[in-house]
Amino acid sequence: MNPMDLTGIGHDTICAVSTPPGRGGIAVVRVSGPQALDIVQRRWQGKPLSEMASHTVHLGHLTDTAGDVLDQAVLTVYHAPNSFTGEDVVELACHGSTWIQQQVIQTLIDAGCRHATAGEFTRRAFANGRMDLSQAEAVADVIEAQSRAAHHVAMSQMRGRYSDELKSLRDKLLHFVALIELELDFSEEDVTFADRSEVTTLALDIHSLISRLADSYRDGNAIRNGMPVAIVGQTNAGKSTLLNALLRDDRALVSNIHGTTRDTIEDTVVMQGTLFRFIDTAGIRQSSDAVEQMGIERSWQAIDKANVVLWVVDVTSADTSMASDILARCEGKALITVLNKTDLDDDYAARSELNDILPEGIPVVAISAKSEKDIEDLRDLIVKTAYLPDVESDAVIVTNARHYQALTRARDAIARAINGLDSGLSGDLLDQDIRECLHWLGEITGEITTDTILGEIFAHFCIGK
Amino acid sequence: MNPMDLTGIGHDTICAVSTPPGRGGIAVVRVSGPQALDIVQRRWQGKPLSEMASHTVHLGHLTDTAGDVLDQAVLTVYHAPNSFTGEDVVELACHGSTWIQQQVIQTLIDAGCRHATAGEFTRRAFANGRMDLSQAEAVADVIEAQSRAAHHVAMSQMRGRYSDELKSLRDKLLHFVALIELELDFSEEDVTFADRSEVTTLALDIHSLISRLADSYRDGNAIRNGMPVAIVGQTNAGKSTLLNALLRDDRALVSNIHGTTRDTIEDTVVMQGTLFRFIDTAGIRQSSDAVEQMGIERSWQAIDKANVVLWVVDVTSADTSMASDILARCEGKALITVLNKTDLDDDYAARSELNDILPEGIPVVAISAKSEKDIEDLRDLIVKTAYLPDVESDAVIVTNARHYQALTRARDAIARAINGLDSGLSGDLLDQDIRECLHWLGEITGEITTDTILGEIFAHFCIGK
Repeated sequence: MNPMDLTGIGHDTICAVSTPPGRGGIAVVRVSGPQALDIVQRRWQGKPLSEMASHTVHLGHLTDTAGDVLDQAVLTVYHAPNSFTGEDVVELACHGSTWIQQQVIQTLIDAGCRHATAGEFTRRAFANGRMDLSQAEAVADVIEAQSRAAHHVAMSQMRGRYSDELKSLRDKLLHFVALIELELDFSEEDVTFADRSEVTTLALDIHSLISRLADSYRDGNAIRNGMPVAIVGQTNAGKSTLLNALLRDDRALVSNIHGTTRDTIEDTVVMQGTLFRFIDTAGIRQSSDAVEQMGIERSWQAIDKANVVLWVVDVTSADTSMASDILARCEGKALITVLNKTDLDDDYAARSELNDILPEGIPVVAISAKSEKDIEDLRDLIVKTAYLPDVESDAVIVTNARHYQALTRARDAIARAINGLDSGLSGDLLDQDIRECLHWLGEITGEITTDTILGEIFAHFCIGK
Repeated sequence: MNPMDLTGIGHDTICAVSTPPGRGGIAVVRVSGPQALDIVQRRWQGKPLSEMASHTVHLGHLTDTAGDVLDQAVLTVYHAPNSFTGEDVVELACHGSTWIQQQVIQTLIDAGCRHATAGEFTRRAFANGRMDLSQAEAVADVIEAQSRAAHHVAMSQMRGRYSDELKSLRDKLLHFVALIELELDFSEEDVTFADRSEVTTLALDIHSLISRLADSYRDGNAIRNGMPVAIVGQTNAGKSTLLNALLRDDRALVSNIHGTTRDTIEDTVVMQGTLFRFIDTAGIRQSSDAVEQMGIERSWQAIDKANVVLWVVDVTSADTSMASDILARCEGKALITVLNKTDLDDDYAARSELNDILPEGIPVVAISAKSEKDIEDLRDLIVKTAYLPDVESDAVIVTNARHYQALTRARDAIARAINGLDSGLSGDLLDQDIRECLHWLGEITGEITTDTILGEIFAHFCIGK
């Protein structure tokens, strides 16, 4: 028998260490499935599990396969369906040696457990209706959050605010379907459908809601992967030194986190609770060298992708030749002029050519990247200037590329329906568009899914979660 | 007010992450102290802690200092004295992101907790009489155990088998004191003490028990730090290649464990559940070079310290010149003759000079360290030949250098008392020896201790234990 059916519900009992890998004071092994209590009972010396009330903890001893005491442990029992997975769950808090952790898993496997795959506990929680798919995905986001903003958005999603919004969208779509089908039912009688304007209003409302969600992904992506800040300027303006100075503070922290994308010219840092991704670029100047031109083209592209642009100007040369090109490309972006190398020229403020190149209304900060003078002022200015989404508000922010893709497809479908209403399309064709829209939203919540999609989603989880 | 008095009992409430550092599915934050319930209540949205029965778990939300939801968490409450520390304890299982772990600690500190020092939870358990000092030390040993044997001994100590033995020793000593003091009470009446032979029998019994414990340290040390195996032989016999071949299998595992002593010529490996410490030595040969002689002297010393000696002989040269010296030095040790380089000479068995140098009754194994041929046979032979203490028996094995020192001093004191009894020493002088003996045993269990000793012991614990 396949231990896992298409919806991901296991019929077997799984176990894994749920706490971080390595040695600590205690480690927690989680066991979930229909046989959880029976299997643990085979390795338990203490009060019988059958006599324990749900949500109670008990001190006792775990034994190995030979029946010898392995460890003193604290056992917590959760009766289905009131557990994380919705199944019977036993959690064993044992001493946190790596040896004990290995042995406890081994003795449980010998007693009849299967070792859990990545994210399988959460997958079971989803399969058993304890949470929808967007909430399940948020569990991984919560564990990976590196900043207050990313954490806040993931928590909100996990707690179901996003699901509520999708559910209300779904209700609207079903209402739409009902109205359309009412028309179809009476179609033979050639009844003109009294309220096609009501349907149009509803469709526009749905389109606007889906659009808002899809558009929030720009913010969501910035929150999750870092607000992109491009550092641009002429060659030798001190851009790389500035990158290092900006990263210095918290670089160690960020470097400790797995999975951070590493690139020679990009790095992330948390400033005042928000994750920023700084992108160092090749110096911009007129060049006939083909290779250099390619580098410069990438600098322009970095500006296009950035939310914030730091234009670094060397105060000692105050070269203005590229100013107008840069300003034109930064139209509509948060731009900051950074006067660098103040350590080499402490009288820069008096120099007229600098005033000539500084455009009006663009904030300016004078620093020395090399001596790290006034870097803190620049940090404050970046945080203040960057358009930071108000994560504390109740508005749902989409952070997941899979959801973004489903939302854009749902938006296309509802847009087709709106066009169809305009051009007097027949009800059964409208119905098809709306059902497609429902399909894409259902992919987000997991009402409509495949084993392949689920496999991809949960493969990114930790083992034990 | 000093938050910690001499016995280590805190009057404040402490918190720390008790699970291993890093990111995982869940992390557990432990809070202990008189204000544990009140402080956590300030950051808890859910059922009030005052209404929770001891040993029950509850789902709710933790909030940050500003009152915003930080995480969904599972809270377990333990009412004093029925907790690990003997104080009120709250355990919070939260999502295992490093960010959440930091934030939960921060919000608890803001709410009135102090961050726990290393081993402070266990220190409080000791101070509150939940365990004696030898049991508290065993908690750290359990967490550090790398092999079945080390784990077994530490578990037995943590569960109090050692404490029971010390307690029975103490009872015998107190009985001794009572007998001696009875004599002292009647001393003015010049009563000859009827039963001085009973006292002598008792003293000899005590001496034998303490000796057994002190002598077990040789095994205990081998179990904890690795059974020492010296690899000796002439230069170029292939000793270092053999070391590498022996370590290969599990080296990665061992290297992942912190605190393993690293030395260019020593390394440990777990074979069949026992930790072995292999010591590669300088080649032994006649030499007039002073520096080389020092190296050779260290090789002889390695033999003295080893439980098992691998004498490596190159089958292609079969040099016998040092054979008698090596055999003499290995008197009483488990010695294995290792015929190396069988890859270079597959007809070695027929060669008579080899038979000449092989002493009778010493196990022989032929291998090729370079091609790793028959290394498994050698491993089996080492495990079989090594005198492995029967850790599965109930006999207590001392693994702690501090305890060994206290036991040798206690043994000296009881030996003086025995001599005193022999030579008719007065009761009050005997009394003094016995009290010293009691003092040393009391240092092990922690009945007699100082803040300095406790500080040193708990400094080696993890934070959160």
